[in-house]
Amino acid sequence: MTETSMKIRLPVACFVMEIILIIIFGVLVEYNEETDARLWHKAVGNGSSIENDFYFRYPSFQDVHVMIFVGFGFLMTFLKRYGFSSVGFNFLIAALALQWATLMQGFFHGMHNGKIHVGVESMINADFCTGAVLISFGAVLGKTSPVQLLVMAILEVTLFAVNEFILLGPLGAKDAGGSMTIHTFGAYFGLSVARVLYRPTLEKSKDKNGSVYHSDLFAMIGTIYLWMFWPSFNSAITAHGDDQHRTAMNTYYSLAACTLATYGMSAMVCHEGKLDMVHIQNAALAGGVAVGTAGEMMLTPYGSMIVGFLAGIISVLGFRFLSPILESKLKIQDTCGVHNLHGMPGVLGAIVGAVTASVASREVYGDGLADVFPLIADGTHNASTQGVFQAVSLAVTLGMALLGGVITGFILKLPIYGAPADTHCYEDAVYWEVPGEEESHGELVTVNTGEADKLNSGAI
Amino acid sequence: MTETSMKIRLPVACFVMEIILIIIFGVLVEYNEETDARLWHKAVGNGSSIENDFYFRYPSFQDVHVMIFVGFGFLMTFLKRYGFSSVGFNFLIAALALQWATLMQGFFHGMHNGKIHVGVESMINADFCTGAVLISFGAVLGKTSPVQLLVMAILEVTLFAVNEFILLGPLGAKDAGGSMTIHTFGAYFGLSVARVLYRPTLEKSKDKNGSVYHSDLFAMIGTIYLWMFWPSFNSAITAHGDDQHRTAMNTYYSLAACTLATYGMSAMVCHEGKLDMVHIQNAALAGGVAVGTAGEMMLTPYGSMIVGFLAGIISVLGFRFLSPILESKLKIQDTCGVHNLHGMPGVLGAIVGAVTASVASREVYGDGLADVFPLIADGTHNASTQGVFQAVSLAVTLGMALLGGVITGFILKLPIYGAPADTHCYEDAVYWEVPGEEESHGELVTVNTGEADKLNSGAI
Amino acid sequence: MTETSMKIRLPVACFVMEIILIIIFGVLVEYNEETDARLWHKAVGNGSSIENDFYFRYPSFQDVHVMIFVGFGFLMTFLKRYGFSSVGFNFLIAALALQWATLMQGFFHGMHNGKIHVGVESMINADFCTGAVLISFGAVLGKTSPVQLLVMAILEVTLFAVNEFILLGPLGAKDAGGSMTIHTFGAYFGLSVARVLYRPTLEKSKDKNGSVYHSDLFAMIGTIYLWMFWPSFNSAITAHGDDQHRTAMNTYYSLAACTLATYGMSAMVCHEGKLDMVHIQNAALAGGVAVGTAGEMMLTPYGSMIVGFLAGIISVLGFRFLSPILESKLKIQDTCGVHNLHGMPGVLGAIVGAVTASVASREVYGDGLADVFPLIADGTHNASTQGVFQAVSLAVTLGMALLGGVITGFILKLPIYGAPADTHCYEDAVYWEVPGEEESHGELVTVNTGEADKLNSGAI
Repeated sequence: MTETSMKIRLPVACFVMEIILIIIFGVLVEYNEETDARLWHKAVGNGSSIENDFYFRYPSFQDVHVMIFVGFGFLMTFLKRYGFSSVGFNFLIAALALQWATLMQGFFHGMHNGKIHVGVESMINADFCTGAVLISFGAVLGKTSPVQLLVMAILEVTLFAVNEFILLGPLGAKDAGGSMTIHTFGAYFGLSVARVLYRPTLEKSKDKNGSVYHSDLFAMIGTIYLWMFWPSFNSAITAHGDDQHRTAMNTYYSLAACTLATYGMSAMVCHEGKLDMVHIQNAALAGGVAVGTAGEMMLTPYGSMIVGFLAGIISVLGFRFLSPILESKLKIQDTCGVHNLHGMPGVLGAIVGAVTASVASREVYGDGLADVFPLIADGTHNASTQGVFQAVSLAVTLGMALLGGVITGFILKLPIYGAPADTHCYEDAVYWEVPGEEESHGELVTVNTGEADKLNSGAI
Repeated sequence: MTETSMKIRLPVACFVMEIILIIIFGVLVEYNEETDARLWHKAVGNGSSIENDFYFRYPSFQDVHVMIFVGFGFLMTFLKRYGFSSVGFNFLIAALALQWATLMQGFFHGMHNGKIHVGVESMINADFCTGAVLISFGAVLGKTSPVQLLVMAILEVTLFAVNEFILLGPLGAKDAGGSMTIHTFGAYFGLSVARVLYRPTLEKSKDKNGSVYHSDLFAMIGTIYLWMFWPSFNSAITAHGDDQHRTAMNTYYSLAACTLATYGMSAMVCHEGKLDMVHIQNAALAGGVAVGTAGEMMLTPYGSMIVGFLAGIISVLGFRFLSPILESKLKIQDTCGVHNLHGMPGVLGAIVGAVTASVASREVYGDGLADVFPLIADGTHNASTQGVFQAVSLAVTLGMALLGGVITGFILKLPIYGAPADTHCYEDAVYWEVPGEEESHGELVTVNTGEADKLNSGAI
Repeated sequence: MTETSMKIRLPVACFVMEIILIIIFGVLVEYNEETDARLWHKAVGNGSSIENDFYFRYPSFQDVHVMIFVGFGFLMTFLKRYGFSSVGFNFLIAALALQWATLMQGFFHGMHNGKIHVGVESMINADFCTGAVLISFGAVLGKTSPVQLLVMAILEVTLFAVNEFILLGPLGAKDAGGSMTIHTFGAYFGLSVARVLYRPTLEKSKDKNGSVYHSDLFAMIGTIYLWMFWPSFNSAITAHGDDQHRTAMNTYYSLAACTLATYGMSAMVCHEGKLDMVHIQNAALAGGVAVGTAGEMMLTPYGSMIVGFLAGIISVLGFRFLSPILESKLKIQDTCGVHNLHGMPGVLGAIVGAVTASVASREVYGDGLADVFPLIADGTHNASTQGVFQAVSLAVTLGMALLGGVITGFILKLPIYGAPADTHCYEDAVYWEVPGEEESHGELVTVNTGEADKLNSGAI
């Protein structure tokens, strides 16, 4: 029985959590009107079922689902010996987070006679919340045990739901694509956790903290899927009709512009005028983050392109110049650079959202104003007030994320989770049975047996 | 001309089969009302085309299509030197099976004035039937020639259609996601074939019957796609509206719970408390199989989670303890462990379906009862009878699959298909021109030329 | 500063192009009625938003998007050391092309009070146009710098839009899936460019012009996604209802038949009766190309299968016998064999379209005739005339593509773009920071540092 063994820890964590989830679901969760056989048939009578929300949102849900499981999962496979953990832990914590998120968001979004109602919209929201957890996962990638990650998921989902409630409820903010609720929150929460979990002698694993040729190609699978489906992400829970349509299109243009900015900046700042895969894999996505708030607004195509263009520039500069400073000065070891992909572009997105909201008018939105800015449409706010509340929402999110991350970090620092030693970070063999690599000459060597023994004996 | 050469066998098989298919399609297949220009315009007049079944089902069809071609195809790439065959033969036999299934299901689902009508629903059904063939392929993976597989596809599709007809027709069973018709049938058919094709000296190829690091990552592409899109699979042919919506959501919850069970069990039963990629790649999917029958019913979210949780546990235990027994005692060499992913969870799913059906009531389903249980709604059955017929359907399926598999196995045993020798199983180079591997130092060696010669001379 | 350095060239190209795009978008592009909040709410009033074109076409758009970015991108990763560039340059030029295409197609498809209107249909059309550029990219793969490719994209998109306008406008041709506008145009444009860029001493890089085991598996990701989603591609912009439905189904059958033909032919023509991955990766897709024009017509399922079957045969024969001749006699170095996948099948598709159009009748199409052949329905053409105009469209496309490709080729020949030397074609390290490969024994070597120095000094 080694220090990092999951033989007892992981089964206990998984089974206890799942059983608790099942019990709470049994007590509290019900089909909503659109998924309940009796209620839907009562509501629709002999009418057509095409108005069931399933047909408005399920294709978007599936695109979001791909982003969560393939996009995030494979994006993190760039490390040379951490592919199993990247995809595998992503899979595990996402499967937990989406269940817990259904409950937490159900509590805060409003119960119905003491019950949580579920349908395709709650599924999308749960996947969204999961996205924030996976962003934080990116910051601590390679340095955590699966049990630590499960605990982080539980805590982060809970805080996410509180923060989301404050923003969308009392503050009346709009944030359909989650520049604030998902990206800013997930990034700064994760960075805060990473700060608390700072490992001074992490350079012992630095030979494994890098990519190989094929691992970078696997990571590009993640990147491309995130990039392609981001229009679905930002539009998944916007209002039916023009809102979903416009949000998807704005995101499409923002990402296209962001991609050109990323390639240009990467060649400009890199060694010998070459392109750096880290930038392409990450910064090209910043355009999706940065229109997460304003994408549903009348941002215009060229406005979206400007935002995406700026996001790409900021993100590459962050990878090149800011990340080393974060590590050396602030002691934040941000494995995937989530500050550059989600943090700064999320803040940019929040600001763009506040500005765009503050110039909203009935002339531009017509009767669509009630969908995009219900509080302006019903006279509760004027446009400037809405803009101010959007900005306040950003501040609240930053505060919640940083504080929540610190508390979570200290909880995760307890020496009970089987975390890897500094010498064995970024290494699948700590938690996985790893097969050998094929040799070039067709013979196979099982290289990890010896190494695994070392790992087990050397782990803290 | 070697014993495993496909130079004549494969062209003859492909061309003869395709030409026969084209002729039968020419004689018997017609566009249905929703794909025929004249008929649709006559039916819809100046009304909206949004009620065309295309908009209800095509996104689900594409998700199913991805599962069949990427999901199954890449899931089987886990073997170190069998990636070309896994994806490539999967591709070939699926392309054949879906055409033949269109005809076979068309015959049995009811002709229209002597014609088979096709549209998006027939496409989904054909892909479903193909899924069963691919499950059986998993059982014999690495030990069969492409011509053998094509012959197996023809025979299995035919029997699938007969079995499906008996279940959905005379027995009035419900099985929208195919726990019985697809998973149980495909698994036991394949196991039965594998039993007949038992190779006593297969250990000669045992060095190739395993994974390498990158092949496991490719396999995770298959796993994750199957996992994500299983909600679309189970809901693809359920009734419009609440049925599709509810089925997708039940499957989503079942899979999430199954994933936690899988990780917990894997760490519990594995060497040194590590996770085993075989379990993650397969058992995490058992939750989708196990709600294939009951997913469209009012199973409730927590009911779905319980089923998924049990399926994950059963499946991991099967891989760990039952598969070795199947091989040593029953002489069933089940390459992919389809008994654990499709066989036992399929049976579980059938039982869950029978139990859920036997407690159906108008109080719970309201007017939706006619969609889910038309025979109960119209008074032909009461709920208990429906449950009994569901159970009988499982028995019929098992019988058909086992018997059909034995017969098919003997047909496939004829020494005319160019099957690989025991020494060259799990090896792409038997049927593919295989390029060399890149060396670490940037030079390339073509390693397979010599080996290929060996293979050819040594093949049976 | 080396000859192939992108330090200045690429940032200048990207930033200048993107800024120009943003300015033109700012001046000319507006939301259309379905994406504008005010206009949509005005149009739909209190009615349902389900009739928004988003719900008819967005799932198809996303499938097309996957084909463009994952399909084309990964299909080209088959080269052993060109995966970064294949996916990465594909990503870059697609992101540019779709923006420029929006403008060019907007000009030619008709402005609205001096404005270009955008929505999901313009997004699909822009992706289609991008597809043509990526086909041409396939012909010159490995031999061009990213700046050359960006310039090619700008020029090709412009000519594409002109050609498309001539075909769909004055000539009244139908070509929903782009057999002519996309595939024939993209292929012959690219071949023409490749002819002008002929490199007599390209054999210096021939050791890198081939695949390795894993690169062929990555390429299969591209192949399978293209194959699966081709039904969505061909149907994406056809009329609502039966047209989309029928086009998708025709393409599905054509591809299935094509796949069997491909496997049969590959085994027949290859060394020792084995299968060749090049054929499977490419020729199996020819069936989608070949029903690009006729797919929306009443081609019948078996008609689609015959077309796909022929396309597969032609394509394999092209790879096996014609490509070597093109290189040796015509001096066309077609890296991906686009002539076999897009060129000949595109011409076949155009011919099939012309023939199918020439037998169109109101008996067969009913009131649907106005959707498929509006000029026949309104009496402008009779069926034969439509067929003739379809054939003329093919000739025009060939002329435009060949001439445009030659001009573009000479522009790309200017020695200002940082193209790779003949000794360093098909090599990522020219334009990318490339990590080392992992050694079999768990140690890592950074192999490219030295090689990169060589590359930089040796580049033209």
